[in-house]
Amino acid sequence: MPRYKLTIEYDGTPFGGWQRQENAPSVQGELEQAILRMTGEEVTVFGAGRTDAGVHAFGQVAHIDLSREWSAEKLRGGLNYHVRPAPIGILRVEAVPETFHARFSAVRRYYVYRILNRRSPPVLDRDRVWHVTRPLDVDAMNEGARYLIGKHDFTTYRSAHCQSASPVKTLDVLEVRQHGDLIEIHTNARSFLHNQVRSMVGSLKMVGEGSWTPERMGIALEARDRRACGMVAPPWGLYLSQVDYPPISESAPAPQD
Amino acid sequence: MPRYKLTIEYDGTPFGGWQRQENAPSVQGELEQAILRMTGEEVTVFGAGRTDAGVHAFGQVAHIDLSREWSAEKLRGGLNYHVRPAPIGILRVEAVPETFHARFSAVRRYYVYRILNRRSPPVLDRDRVWHVTRPLDVDAMNEGARYLIGKHDFTTYRSAHCQSASPVKTLDVLEVRQHGDLIEIHTNARSFLHNQVRSMVGSLKMVGEGSWTPERMGIALEARDRRACGMVAPPWGLYLSQVDYPPISESAPAPQD
Repeated sequence: MPRYKLTIEYDGTPFGGWQRQENAPSVQGELEQAILRMTGEEVTVFGAGRTDAGVHAFGQVAHIDLSREWSAEKLRGGLNYHVRPAPIGILRVEAVPETFHARFSAVRRYYVYRILNRRSPPVLDRDRVWHVTRPLDVDAMNEGARYLIGKHDFTTYRSAHCQSASPVKTLDVLEVRQHGDLIEIHTNARSFLHNQVRSMVGSLKMVGEGSWTPERMGIALEARDRRACGMVAPPWGLYLSQVDYPPISESAPAPQD
Repeated sequence: MPRYKLTIEYDGTPFGGWQRQENAPSVQGELEQAILRMTGEEVTVFGAGRTDAGVHAFGQVAHIDLSREWSAEKLRGGLNYHVRPAPIGILRVEAVPETFHARFSAVRRYYVYRILNRRSPPVLDRDRVWHVTRPLDVDAMNEGARYLIGKHDFTTYRSAHCQSASPVKTLDVLEVRQHGDLIEIHTNARSFLHNQVRSMVGSLKMVGEGSWTPERMGIALEARDRRACGMVAPPWGLYLSQVDYPPISESAPAPQD
């Protein structure tokens, strides 16, 4: 069966998360409904990352198998038409070999976390940023972030409900940048634990406002204890921004680290 | 009476425009209601620019007179509280002399127009950008924009309903910048005619997609005829981003050019 890779943008606000679920609309569910309306086929949409309720994406990746061939352009246009009015857009469609798997072939995930750091509440960015009123020290946050770079046991910075077999991950980038009153935290790794980005960001915010020293990021990490985590940042500031894959010829499922 | 300068952000989507009106909510009306709820005073809010329905702002300026003194911080916080749930935020409050007038003292207005230039519809930026699917040539747009810089009769590029006494304005900046699939048009002048920015942007879009040559921007200008205008860009891509005033000591009402 022909397999298609989809690159997807969504506003996470109205969804219970990426994953299909009983009691709330989901991004996966809306996409599956759109495919059913367009093609008459009941398919499962496999996503690279199962984002939580309220988390956004401008570069989520998923794959689907369809029984007939579609031109990428027709499939993209049709899915965008049929997914309305859900706030989901299919940015790109590519035909891929059956060895491609959106989740298991992924070799790098990128997230951006946005903080609006000012007294007045967000207006144009409502539901799109974490509103933090105390002025944040971006240099201190970057100093704290450096303690987490590299291969570590991230037990402190993952959800108590995280189902990953191992808490050991390699974090390649965790960088804080300021643009006026907008603070962006960029991070990427081969893969992340459940709530890892929001746990790191919540703790970095405590460094930024001075209630934690930068060193405490490392001390908390070494504690390997969820209770040492500062706080968990809310979902509405988080964006899955990009997922990387090896060149198509090498895209057989890769082992997860 | 103490006079206060307000710097304001709003999402123009739900409003019939800045100006108070009978049949639609307005930014001015919502602000006046918030002031009434907070202070018990019925006041008129004077804005620097009367933005149309759907037009946004992250730097609108207005002034109000109140019968008693307020600390700027208390007034800012209280107005943000009382204006909810309208998508309006008061970013700054400053006490100003009675010679300050938000509209008549203004010496420069800045607008940004945002175009999302890609095939797929906007999702995270829905109602925030003009969606243009044909690829735009930003160099050609900048070449066309240069014909409008300077002091000209802008009859071609103003609404037939514009009530300004003279169509002659001096345009200081009109610049097109590209960031990925987002195209931003930055412009500023002492003042603009009604629909001038949207008329200039609509015509520049025709240059960008190749249906107008860059020179045609200047030919249309010289025609001094509204029918020579290319098209009017929709309101939802437009943002009033900043208003400049002379230093407080010189802020007596200035004559309009």
